[in-house]
Amino acid sequence: MNSAPKVPIPTLERLATYLRYLIDLEASNVDTISSTEVERQTGINAAQFRKDLSYFREFGKPGVGYNVVELQTRIARILQIDRDQSVIVIGAGNLGSALVGYPGLGEHHFNIVGVFDSSPHKIGTTIFDLDILDVRTLKENNALLRARIAIIAVPASAAQAVAENAAAAGVRALLNFAPIILKVSDRVVVRNVSFLQELAVLSYQIVADVRK
Amino acid sequence: MNSAPKVPIPTLERLATYLRYLIDLEASNVDTISSTEVERQTGINAAQFRKDLSYFREFGKPGVGYNVVELQTRIARILQIDRDQSVIVIGAGNLGSALVGYPGLGEHHFNIVGVFDSSPHKIGTTIFDLDILDVRTLKENNALLRARIAIIAVPASAAQAVAENAAAAGVRALLNFAPIILKVSDRVVVRNVSFLQELAVLSYQIVADVRK
Repeated sequence: MNSAPKVPIPTLERLATYLRYLIDLEASNVDTISSTEVERQTGINAAQFRKDLSYFREFGKPGVGYNVVELQTRIARILQIDRDQSVIVIGAGNLGSALVGYPGLGEHHFNIVGVFDSSPHKIGTTIFDLDILDVRTLKENNALLRARIAIIAVPASAAQAVAENAAAAGVRALLNFAPIILKVSDRVVVRNVSFLQELAVLSYQIVADVRK
Repeated sequence: MNSAPKVPIPTLERLATYLRYLIDLEASNVDTISSTEVERQTGINAAQFRKDLSYFREFGKPGVGYNVVELQTRIARILQIDRDQSVIVIGAGNLGSALVGYPGLGEHHFNIVGVFDSSPHKIGTTIFDLDILDVRTLKENNALLRARIAIIAVPASAAQAVAENAAAAGVRALLNFAPIILKVSDRVVVRNVSFLQELAVLSYQIVADVRK
């Protein structure tokens, strides 16, 4: 409660993968799973799965397995996604719109509470029932919205300024889609989603595989 | 040339990050960089940077640093993104459209050669000068297009079938945006981009940080 365990980021990423899988299982009315089954379905090694869970506490019993609903609830709580979180999206282009309309976010308590853009053609229009707000009013608006997470979906040339303004507006975490390395204060955490990076890794893997 | 080194995937991911940074540096007319400077700018440890490069060959000299253009060229070649690669996008919603229009891909030789959708309202219309093709014609069309990489930007309910059809159509690598764990043959490599996962990790990090 009063001290957070030092959990490696890859463990957190895998927890989110397990959660995704557990949600699918629950929808298929599966009650319990084994770590071997987790490995078969997610491609993540069974020993790794048990180690990831051990950072938090041991649950699951050898030979009995894990209760799907219980494990799902536990992981959601660990990741803090069992409670509502307000998120703002900056950039209302195709990507920003896709994120605002992404059904999975609301289901996991990530509530998009504001969308910002700089284009006079977009400001004042709505997407998915949200008014597009002027990005120059980010600070005033976020004083009301109180989002601590912002998604940056603006072109690379605008991203650094947007990140700084978001931080000044009280945002503590940035999910950055712009292909640029953001420089932010230590108070702000950043995760980057790079389509190019993902494709580059796939590109390498195809060729490495061909050479086998 | 005839045997691919066994390179960890996190190394490949970091290579793509270095590449991003080197491109920014070249645009700013910086000639050489040190591993310390790489650490300061990308947040990736200098020793890690040197280790990542050592998988391929040693370049850069202690006290002299790395030539920005040369290193960029080398990394692009390692990742196989110095040559044209054909990519198809399946799903022409907001997300698919964002990917088709994403300027960074073409710059790195990832050429989107086809877009597919199942909606009669979309098939036959164009986005960014590409005709939207009927996803049921994936196999016939990819016999001509010959893309080995496909981006899956369809709803979760359609993703598994789409992945199987893509594999049957000769696709070897899938970049999957649907929130589902795809089951594919060993011949196909998959990378998943999960907005939920990214937000969940940020969510944990904010709270862990608050507790420090």
